[in-house]
Amino acid sequence: MNNIFSDRISDVPRSFIREILKVAVDTSVISFAGGLPNRDLFPVAELQAAVNKVFESAGKEVLQYSNSEGYPKLREYISRRYLEKKGLDIPVENILITSGSQQGLDLLGKTFLNEGDDVIIEEPGYLGAIQAFSVYKSVFNPVRVTEDGMDVDGLKEVISARSPKLMYSVPNFQNPSGISYSVKNRSAIADVLKSTSTLLIEDDPYGDLRFTGDEKESFGKILPEKTILLGSFSKTIVPSFRLGWITAPNNDVMEKLIIAKQASDLHTNYFIQRVICQYIADNDLQKHIDKIIKVYNSQRLAMVRSIEKYFPSGVSHTHPEGGMFLWATLPEGTSSMELFDFAIKDKVAFVPGIPFYINKEKTNTLRLNFSCVDEETIETGIKRLGKSIEKIIS
Amino acid sequence: MNNIFSDRISDVPRSFIREILKVAVDTSVISFAGGLPNRDLFPVAELQAAVNKVFESAGKEVLQYSNSEGYPKLREYISRRYLEKKGLDIPVENILITSGSQQGLDLLGKTFLNEGDDVIIEEPGYLGAIQAFSVYKSVFNPVRVTEDGMDVDGLKEVISARSPKLMYSVPNFQNPSGISYSVKNRSAIADVLKSTSTLLIEDDPYGDLRFTGDEKESFGKILPEKTILLGSFSKTIVPSFRLGWITAPNNDVMEKLIIAKQASDLHTNYFIQRVICQYIADNDLQKHIDKIIKVYNSQRLAMVRSIEKYFPSGVSHTHPEGGMFLWATLPEGTSSMELFDFAIKDKVAFVPGIPFYINKEKTNTLRLNFSCVDEETIETGIKRLGKSIEKIIS
Repeated sequence: MNNIFSDRISDVPRSFIREILKVAVDTSVISFAGGLPNRDLFPVAELQAAVNKVFESAGKEVLQYSNSEGYPKLREYISRRYLEKKGLDIPVENILITSGSQQGLDLLGKTFLNEGDDVIIEEPGYLGAIQAFSVYKSVFNPVRVTEDGMDVDGLKEVISARSPKLMYSVPNFQNPSGISYSVKNRSAIADVLKSTSTLLIEDDPYGDLRFTGDEKESFGKILPEKTILLGSFSKTIVPSFRLGWITAPNNDVMEKLIIAKQASDLHTNYFIQRVICQYIADNDLQKHIDKIIKVYNSQRLAMVRSIEKYFPSGVSHTHPEGGMFLWATLPEGTSSMELFDFAIKDKVAFVPGIPFYINKEKTNTLRLNFSCVDEETIETGIKRLGKSIEKIIS
Repeated sequence: MNNIFSDRISDVPRSFIREILKVAVDTSVISFAGGLPNRDLFPVAELQAAVNKVFESAGKEVLQYSNSEGYPKLREYISRRYLEKKGLDIPVENILITSGSQQGLDLLGKTFLNEGDDVIIEEPGYLGAIQAFSVYKSVFNPVRVTEDGMDVDGLKEVISARSPKLMYSVPNFQNPSGISYSVKNRSAIADVLKSTSTLLIEDDPYGDLRFTGDEKESFGKILPEKTILLGSFSKTIVPSFRLGWITAPNNDVMEKLIIAKQASDLHTNYFIQRVICQYIADNDLQKHIDKIIKVYNSQRLAMVRSIEKYFPSGVSHTHPEGGMFLWATLPEGTSSMELFDFAIKDKVAFVPGIPFYINKEKTNTLRLNFSCVDEETIETGIKRLGKSIEKIIS
């Protein structure tokens, strides 16, 4: 049984986070480890109403096979929203509905990456992207992100040394760090990329969840001919439906993405596409998002307050303007993996930073999720974690 | 824009069938081209009831992210059904829920195929499998199938000349030909494979739709340590839900399939898994399948009757014992592509055989679908097609 597998599958890391979530199922553990939206905010009754309406208006049709591109009305909605919210001109025919954004990443790997092709990835970066591109045996070129965005000198260095096909970025409330690219940073990145052949992937699952600060221009606006946008309904409406989308910068790319989609799963669940479309038609999505923002923002503030109260000095953290995550850095020389063992004993969980790095040398960072835990529990959990941190630095 | 794409994506054929379906949308055309289940048989009311029950019993939970393997109770049902219907012992932990069977094929490509790896494929063979494996740049070794099953001498030849990693087969009511592997043929194939390292994929989307003849033993029974089973609810309950599964012959393979699944789309729509599970719990699935069988069988008989009445002599056809397709062979030297142009003018459509062949030399075959067209329309359509055939052979 040794050599039967493809080379690629041995290179793909099994999700470390999923392994950690298994440790954190003990209900006495307060978990900041997840990456889940808050289930108490799911629009259950509204979705049930939408489902019944779809059954009653188009029962047979919505149960049949459908096309690979996706339901035209849903794609029209996405196109219209890009125009209204971001001033982007994304034609309907360049929008492909995917089985969640994760599938968008897989389709990009299929469509663009030969073995050994270079990909720029944020450091720390999103694990799902690392997993998806690993399948296609790409070479990862990590570029550091800080509170201001991507390190432009680091980016220039990679661009001149290699000729990366893709750059993967989460410019708004990044997973894992919660940081956003500043206006100046976006513009500098666009300047670096514009004369290259590198395509930029703007993955924006959290973009709608802005608590504070001004909306920044999308790369779709600054660098339209080179930008591929990924979007998702998982963080704004419902995750289990696995509904996302990908935009192509031109018809040639779209044509290839459709072929990749056909080969991958024929098409995305058509019934579910109709349900989401019905839900959007019958409800004020922005009002629903505002409700999510209000709750997450209170929880973020509770987490920041508790960190400043209970964490020993020497621990720094990011200041997310939205999203679901905050990133803490322990004093140099300490290990967040070691902290994890203490924390679990103290009944609190988080994700150690290490899986988010291509080169595994950084060990003093951690990701804290604030979307799923109420304010009071956040305070209790951060207090526990503060005590655990004290154990490893003393 | 010329060299930006991966080599692989240029090798993947765009679905020819989907292109043909576009031609056949004209409602005055009687279409035998589709591969769709009959929408009049979808259990609309029962599924609506199941959805409402799921919302009412577990509204929030079923909308959250879930695990990559799939809903345990659905996997238990699949395991139990394999035991009861086929005497197969497939442990729950070796069953992975997929976004339709097509995704099962993609996961197998990801998990097993390096560039240049050999794959055995039926000739004529299922286009979705050719598409899925093309992505991984495999080398296809077509082996002929006839009314009795796979050509065993052809299989031996490929096995001794190459060392194929995978053999793809649809032993029951094959797409496109409608043929099934006989008991003797299955046993001969197992004898050839048992001492090799080739894994056998038994794709069985139509297996439940048997109209006549005896159920044949699954390769999962004859060659359990080498067989990967693919199954689907698309042909028995509902296609748009995109719900299928894959079984692993051992834990090592399962482990890799889970990694491939995570990288592809994290997990299959969890809400939909719960709905199908609820539907199965509250309804007699076998009774529903019996209803489908009754209708499809009448339509098959109508098609065979009409072919014998209206097709000129010299046209032969297969005798499917189940499924959705029948395969016709025109006299030597004629072209079903040429026939297609005449047929469209005569307002009848089918799929010419050519896309189902790796080597495109065979041109006198065609696939006829009988699941979606009522008996009267079948007679009218086959009569039209008979006239078109006369035009190309005279």
